[in-house]
Amino acid sequence: MTRIFIAIGMVAAGLATRARTQSAGNEVIALEKGALDRWGNGDVEGYLSLYADEITYFDPFQAHRIDGLAAMRAAYGPFQGKIHVDRYEMLNPKVQLSGDIAVLSYNIQNYASQPDGSEKTAARWNVTEVFRRTGDKWRTIHSHFSFTQPKLAP
Amino acid sequence: MTRIFIAIGMVAAGLATRARTQSAGNEVIALEKGALDRWGNGDVEGYLSLYADEITYFDPFQAHRIDGLAAMRAAYGPFQGKIHVDRYEMLNPKVQLSGDIAVLSYNIQNYASQPDGSEKTAARWNVTEVFRRTGDKWRTIHSHFSFTQPKLAP
Repeated sequence: MTRIFIAIGMVAAGLATRARTQSAGNEVIALEKGALDRWGNGDVEGYLSLYADEITYFDPFQAHRIDGLAAMRAAYGPFQGKIHVDRYEMLNPKVQLSGDIAVLSYNIQNYASQPDGSEKTAARWNVTEVFRRTGDKWRTIHSHFSFTQPKLAP
Repeated sequence: MTRIFIAIGMVAAGLATRARTQSAGNEVIALEKGALDRWGNGDVEGYLSLYADEITYFDPFQAHRIDGLAAMRAAYGPFQGKIHVDRYEMLNPKVQLSGDIAVLSYNIQNYASQPDGSEKTAARWNVTEVFRRTGDKWRTIHSHFSFTQPKLAP
């Protein structure tokens, strides 16, 4: 009988872990989509407000890694109101949870509306966001954006 | 007197944490350099043997994220013996440690030897490697390679 209770306990603990992982996954995906929505509307504060002081950051436009929130504000603050994405699709987001760290990775496709009402693919990206939980808040400690299969100049 | 001991205890704990962080940082940087050295000599097993089963992976040649060790073996196993990097420089590696997770990020510059004995820059990369410690082993759970400031086709 004891074994059955232990088995039930293990299944319950397993389900609880899975529920916690799913919940943390949904939280960081929601935070990321919120930041993407604001970014597409020209509001860079969505991302900037998610960054921890220790943020480390890569994108294809930088000569090297950017370190720290102050440097990120200096780099992206001036773009406030100057960015517009018509529509995006977040593809296949995956969250790898370990203690207070959640690693979110996904592909994203941006679309640009055409004068005739159709859409074309404006850009495709590979995205990594590493979040750290402090108390009940998730903050980004590392971010890496890159082009998916860029067509390079010969 | 008690306060002094508490203060000394806190300083000691702080130093111990810093020593642990430095040690973990040195470990994952050494693992990464070992894998890079083998890669540059055509041995893809250096990286493949570091990957956890759950590895998620981006590089600029893939149409989307690769998930899992079997898929990575399928993608990079065939390159065994077919890669050569004359020399590389790992620039400004940084490790962000949190529990059993270490996030390593760095820039890297590859060099190609020229017939006249000089060198030219062959490629510049942004690199993210997320390691998880299980027991005394670090394994890569996420990896993201991208070009630094790629020159795109018009």
